[in-house]
Amino acid sequence: MDKAAARQKFLDEFPALVAELEQILKGYGLSEEAIKWYRDSLNYNTPGGKLNRGLSVVDTYVILKGYGSIVEVPDVEYSKLALLGWCIELLQAYFLVADDMMDKSITRRGQPCWYKQPHVGEIAINDAFMLEGAIYVLLKKHFKQDAYYVDLLELFHDVTFQTEVGQLLDLITAPEDHVDLSNFSLEKHSFIVIFKTAFYSFYLPVALAMHVAGVSSEQDLKQAHDVLIPLGEYFQIQDDFLDCFGKPEDIGKIGTDIKDNKCSWVVNTALKLATPEQRHILDTNYGIKNDKTEAVCKQLFRDMKIDEFYHQYEEKTVTKLREQIANVDESRGFKGAVLTVFLDKVYKRTK
Amino acid sequence: MDKAAARQKFLDEFPALVAELEQILKGYGLSEEAIKWYRDSLNYNTPGGKLNRGLSVVDTYVILKGYGSIVEVPDVEYSKLALLGWCIELLQAYFLVADDMMDKSITRRGQPCWYKQPHVGEIAINDAFMLEGAIYVLLKKHFKQDAYYVDLLELFHDVTFQTEVGQLLDLITAPEDHVDLSNFSLEKHSFIVIFKTAFYSFYLPVALAMHVAGVSSEQDLKQAHDVLIPLGEYFQIQDDFLDCFGKPEDIGKIGTDIKDNKCSWVVNTALKLATPEQRHILDTNYGIKNDKTEAVCKQLFRDMKIDEFYHQYEEKTVTKLREQIANVDESRGFKGAVLTVFLDKVYKRTK
Ligand SMILES: [Mg+2]
Ligand SMILES: [Mg+2]
Ligand SMILES: [Mg+2]
Ligand SMILES: [Mg+2]
Ligand SMILES: [Mg+2]
Ligand SMILES: [Mg+2]
Repeated sequence: MDKAAARQKFLDEFPALVAELEQILKGYGLSEEAIKWYRDSLNYNTPGGKLNRGLSVVDTYVILKGYGSIVEVPDVEYSKLALLGWCIELLQAYFLVADDMMDKSITRRGQPCWYKQPHVGEIAINDAFMLEGAIYVLLKKHFKQDAYYVDLLELFHDVTFQTEVGQLLDLITAPEDHVDLSNFSLEKHSFIVIFKTAFYSFYLPVALAMHVAGVSSEQDLKQAHDVLIPLGEYFQIQDDFLDCFGKPEDIGKIGTDIKDNKCSWVVNTALKLATPEQRHILDTNYGIKNDKTEAVCKQLFRDMKIDEFYHQYEEKTVTKLREQIANVDESRGFKGAVLTVFLDKVYKRTK
Repeated sequence: MDKAAARQKFLDEFPALVAELEQILKGYGLSEEAIKWYRDSLNYNTPGGKLNRGLSVVDTYVILKGYGSIVEVPDVEYSKLALLGWCIELLQAYFLVADDMMDKSITRRGQPCWYKQPHVGEIAINDAFMLEGAIYVLLKKHFKQDAYYVDLLELFHDVTFQTEVGQLLDLITAPEDHVDLSNFSLEKHSFIVIFKTAFYSFYLPVALAMHVAGVSSEQDLKQAHDVLIPLGEYFQIQDDFLDCFGKPEDIGKIGTDIKDNKCSWVVNTALKLATPEQRHILDTNYGIKNDKTEAVCKQLFRDMKIDEFYHQYEEKTVTKLREQIANVDESRGFKGAVLTVFLDKVYKRTK
């Protein structure tokens, strides 16, 4: 099954989940108008992204169970895995609806942010809550009978909290309306990206699939964690790198991290290496919504050869991760191949 | 132990919970600045209210276990019950921080709303998330070993979602900036108050104590539910009544429901009974931030004798609830006295 077909198969599961959630509200006796509101929020905010996180749950399961491909997974099993994938997408929707409000963003995935629609506004906060709430409604309905049900609940709780902690540090380190580079550091950057991104985007999909596959000893979860967290950090560092150094025609968008005062790996690396003169240039040009100051920063990053430091970081990191994966202990059923798939998706991607 | 001492004993448990949450963030390696932010949010948003919900968990447990008073509860047991009480207060803090943003409120409990503080602003959304997140961190730490752990998790999930559903209907029925009384109805009012208030304020504290006390069969939870939900509805109807008809010196505040376009029991009852002329008066005077239009509405409500309808509703409801309580089946360990305490707290209160 090719990538597009796998994606379509996954997307085809979503309407039934929306229908189930609607059914529960109907059972409560909620008005049709409010049910429609929730349906619209679910449909507007949940699909529409790349769905990499959701799809990874299924992909990981296929490898762990030794299936040749997705088509070999029995329908009932596939639906359960896809449901967990959609729970990650719901979690992400919850984060993104709120993040866009906190960042005062205008668009998301090529359409107005949910809260930016005139009829929504601040109600989006409660809509975010209900996107998260959907996760536990669905888990209860579909996994209550499974021995690992409580593990799934705790996993979602833990990762949700970790992501919120990362978001907190990001929000107070790089406020949307106040530039102060002395707040930034590579250490904070590392914490933010690991907590805000790596846990829910890399560790969560694999850990969920491991629980369903019954490959979920503490040691095996740790093996997955110890590769996926640095891999997630690498992914975000790469994302930061491409935002500044990638070609718009490759990355499919125009980077805005410099203008947005983002606590990015690029600026943090530059801050660490900067002479007093270079630091002054950054202090007076970073985080301003202006093409000229942005161009000044970009030129400085090129002059400082931040791209070379990135390539060194990348090669070192990938080498270390490949080594870790080669040494994975597969005796309890975990498979290094799960991690290789993730690494290969990230390594040398251009978008 | 008198009421003030019981409240103080409960309050004394909170700092240790904050310290535990801080300790977990410290374990993550989070910066001191971010830990302080979370501590401040926890302390600003969680205590400071009446704490009725939290205190009820302990009170209910004392009755179910047949203790003579709180002082007889062993310390370790007391702390576990109080922790569950604080989890309800955290849940409420999560709702209130967000509700104040959605309602564009200015003050809460005599101080500026959390989001209204200049250094906080929209970050309050993530702070609300982390107040909710604290619940599951604490439950995992203190109840993971208990057989009813998953019941606690599901109870919080269910009640959280129900409250959000009630909030959704409230938000789209009575938007803060658009008055349209044709959206209102007594049926919607009933749904909103049951979902937005009764579940987490009345059912949740009792159900939590029942799980810990081991009095938690489906039938007993249903007996509690079937009294506490209408009792919670009655509580909110009374709240709506007092907002309009109570004396400020009795209720300790000046009612603002009329000016705030609240979907209150008073206006809904008036809408049901209004002649076309009276309806016209409401359409042109309700939900406006103006003393004169407010006085017009108040006079209309008095002319329509809404207070008499309220007293009829109250007597009928209390009689029915007393009957239900008298018929409670105590054979499995549940006790009607739990419900009587709640009813007596609500009946004929003035504030
Ligand atoms: Mg953002
Ligand atoms: Mg952000
Ligand atoms: Mg980026
Ligand atoms: Mg409010
Ligand atoms: Mg409100
Ligand atoms: Mg009120």
